[in-house]
Amino acid sequence: MKPLILVTNDDGITAPGLRALIEVMSQLGDVIVVAPDKPQSAMGHAITINNTLYLNKMTSDEAAIQEYSCSGTPVDCVKMATCEILKRKPDLCVSGINHGSNSSINIIYSGTMSAAVEAAIEGIPSIGFSLQDFSWDADFDQVKPFVKKITSQVIEHGLPEGVLLNVNFPKLPYDEIKGIKVCRQAKAMWLEKFDKRTSPMGKDYYWLTGEFVNQDQGEDTDEWALDNGYVSMVPVQFDMTAHHAMQVLNTWKLNG
Amino acid sequence: MKPLILVTNDDGITAPGLRALIEVMSQLGDVIVVAPDKPQSAMGHAITINNTLYLNKMTSDEAAIQEYSCSGTPVDCVKMATCEILKRKPDLCVSGINHGSNSSINIIYSGTMSAAVEAAIEGIPSIGFSLQDFSWDADFDQVKPFVKKITSQVIEHGLPEGVLLNVNFPKLPYDEIKGIKVCRQAKAMWLEKFDKRTSPMGKDYYWLTGEFVNQDQGEDTDEWALDNGYVSMVPVQFDMTAHHAMQVLNTWKLNG
Repeated sequence: MKPLILVTNDDGITAPGLRALIEVMSQLGDVIVVAPDKPQSAMGHAITINNTLYLNKMTSDEAAIQEYSCSGTPVDCVKMATCEILKRKPDLCVSGINHGSNSSINIIYSGTMSAAVEAAIEGIPSIGFSLQDFSWDADFDQVKPFVKKITSQVIEHGLPEGVLLNVNFPKLPYDEIKGIKVCRQAKAMWLEKFDKRTSPMGKDYYWLTGEFVNQDQGEDTDEWALDNGYVSMVPVQFDMTAHHAMQVLNTWKLNG
Repeated sequence: MKPLILVTNDDGITAPGLRALIEVMSQLGDVIVVAPDKPQSAMGHAITINNTLYLNKMTSDEAAIQEYSCSGTPVDCVKMATCEILKRKPDLCVSGINHGSNSSINIIYSGTMSAAVEAAIEGIPSIGFSLQDFSWDADFDQVKPFVKKITSQVIEHGLPEGVLLNVNFPKLPYDEIKGIKVCRQAKAMWLEKFDKRTSPMGKDYYWLTGEFVNQDQGEDTDEWALDNGYVSMVPVQFDMTAHHAMQVLNTWKLNG
């Protein structure tokens, strides 16, 4: 039986990166698409609890691939797919291909990656894919062979319990990409700058901008891999416990 | 010199839980408040990149505690505070006290905890506080002594690099709380149910609802602690790498 593959993203149902991912996945299994009806970048793991959600079927019953758009966040899309649309648990969830990198600390802000994390929480093997190119007409053809290879390996081997993959592609032609590297998340952060402006009504407002700073000099990080022409593949977990710190905290005077 | 303490939350600047936290923090240091101008629960680590942000000073220059409201998410509030408002890096960031639990997997959906995570990413020791009571008139007096004790310990000892605290309080009178327990995040998830309704215009819409399922029978988890009358204190990290899975992935045929 062909695997049932749920496809989602955060750039919205019309994004070229989503179309590229659908094309590759249709070679590997039965595909169903549930994606946001508008861009939802940087939504992190937000869910819609104080507002209503709408679901729109975009395809006819006869279409080979069923597509739905949802008014909510990427995480809402995954929940909507698994609870309301799909008759059985999918064998795989893939999210992306994101227009722009989600390496390093960006995983935590990313709607694309949060959708993949949500699927993993629900016990579905999942992968988030992102390309280091923010433009709408980014060239996804270059990375399709890697998407297919990695997804095939996940279908073949499965993933360890509670683990998903964060895959990022450098913006390079196919034959200049050196290969796929298993990496850890680099320690990095954004140095924010707010661009302060004044509205025609005389009210101050701000745009969030910032500069990405990689503080990590390791050669085993996703940032290093991307900078050196590799596809980065980071295994990700949603247990955020800093287990190594429990000993330290247990030396504190907390009781009595 | 008294420590400079940034206070934020996700329930919004008018929330009683925030007021309780401000009261305790003003006994420990110089306090500045930057909180959302409306409820921002379940916003996860969302940031505002495709929209403008507004900042409103809520207090006079003479007020002992300066307060600002921000039109963005809890994470936006922390970025706005550190980049735009504060003259120096705060010594501590505290978020909450949340109306409702953020134990276990809820950390990942929580705006309260995401604000604390953001501060930690920026190198600021931080703590998120939550009470297992969703009601607006929840009784925060019962937990103030614990908030003070834990915060004092963090000011005294600091926190390990890249680690913050997720503190949850059971809904119990002060003298029935057995103490503070260092815990790990329980493995749990939400079993979603969508409540499907039809609008007056005849259009179907959904409300996200769900049932929390603790799959973890360990007695070292935050869920166990709360169920047994303890305050749970989980050290949290933002390195989401599943380091233990890297070996496994390196056995796959990824290249050549």
